Amino acid sequence: MTLEIYWGSGSPFAWRVLLAAELKRIAYDSKLLEFSKGDLKKPEFLALNPRGKVPVIRDGDFVLAESMAILAYLDRKVPDPPLFGRTPEETGRIWSQIFDFESYLREPLATVSRWLFGDKPRTPDVDDARAKAVTEFDRFSERVARGYLVGDTPTAADLVWFPPLRTLVRAGVRAEGRVKELGLFPFADVYPHIGAWMARIEALPGYDRTFPPHWR
Amino acid sequence: MTLEIYWGSGSPFAWRVLLAAELKRIAYDSKLLEFSKGDLKKPEFLALNPRGKVPVIRDGDFVLAESMAILAYLDRKVPDPPLFGRTPEETGRIWSQIFDFESYLREPLATVSRWLFGDKPRTPDVDDARAKAVTEFDRFSERVARGYLVGDTPTAADLVWFPPLRTLVRAGVRAEGRVKELGLFPFADVYPHIGAWMARIEALPGYDRTFPPHWR
Repeated sequence: MTLEIYWGSGSPFAWRVLLAAELKRIAYDSKLLEFSKGDLKKPEFLALNPRGKVPVIRDGDFVLAESMAILAYLDRKVPDPPLFGRTPEETGRIWSQIFDFESYLREPLATVSRWLFGDKPRTPDVDDARAKAVTEFDRFSERVARGYLVGDTPTAADLVWFPPLRTLVRAGVRAEGRVKELGLFPFADVYPHIGAWMARIEALPGYDRTFPPHWR
Repeated sequence: MTLEIYWGSGSPFAWRVLLAAELKRIAYDSKLLEFSKGDLKKPEFLALNPRGKVPVIRDGDFVLAESMAILAYLDRKVPDPPLFGRTPEETGRIWSQIFDFESYLREPLATVSRWLFGDKPRTPDVDDARAKAVTEFDRFSERVARGYLVGDTPTAADLVWFPPLRTLVRAGVRAEGRVKELGLFPFADVYPHIGAWMARIEALPGYDRTFPPHWR
């Protein structure tokens, strides 16, 4: 039975799962859904995930939603290479980095992005979010200076941090208007360690298959 | 070397860790910090966690913050009884339930609680959050009708859901004013399956040691 991965182009959550499958060299059947066609609200998909969100996997009779749950499942199913560490200490550090992103960067990054791609004025909320994001970028930059987030191979923590940061880099390609005003671009110039870490991820086997099709 | 657990009375995140240690019968040195005395902002604690948040553990030289990271660490260190399942499918389901809470209930519950304990008027935001919370309570109630969230023993998923729901039950003890207006109390009457599940957790060995001291 082949693993099916239901995903959407550019969804940072789905991207984690594709990267995990590639890292573990798990063969999978790619089920690319189109947000714009309402694929996620169609009955056949809602039967898999009533919340109507990607990613979802189907492995034989077993259906699972939520990206981190899928990563944990795949790691138990195909333990090598490990996504969650080889020792209790590594496991702890990896999850700590994952929740660092969830607890401290996800919100600020979303606020900054809403402003960046919107037409609302720059409020103190946006400045506050930018300051928080910069603090997290600084911490993150130190952590990846010598390789990956935890240890010298990519782990689940790298797969959580990569998609949103790669999305931010893409936003900065046209350095004009709000993008220029934000003062974080070109991102890899402002944060060379993060840029180098990103290049390491992009060089991993199978990365190209995970790249959001609509970005090309 | 004894495990040290730094926690604060009533912190739902710290409560998860205490419950995990009790479930696994891990001996620990309880380091109860007082929020009101500023213990979390003191230099000796900031040296352990620069973010100044509980829970934190110290196990010999190893220091770790973030409750879910600590649970994952403890589970690798002391595998029995398992907090994250015995099969890949159980592992996936457990993390899925954990992220269900994080993604769909945490925010609405926080909004409802802010209104409940505050003096701000009831806005459409509060009504919307209440409706979302009720949807999640309904789903949750079905899931725990026959025992625990995943399988027939408590797992990390139960430890994530228990503290915030137990905190809500406590809020409903004095059924007057806003509490009465919310229409969710007594919680165990409105949701008998959840009430029974909660009683199962409260009957676990060592539970009393995890109970927030300032609630007594």
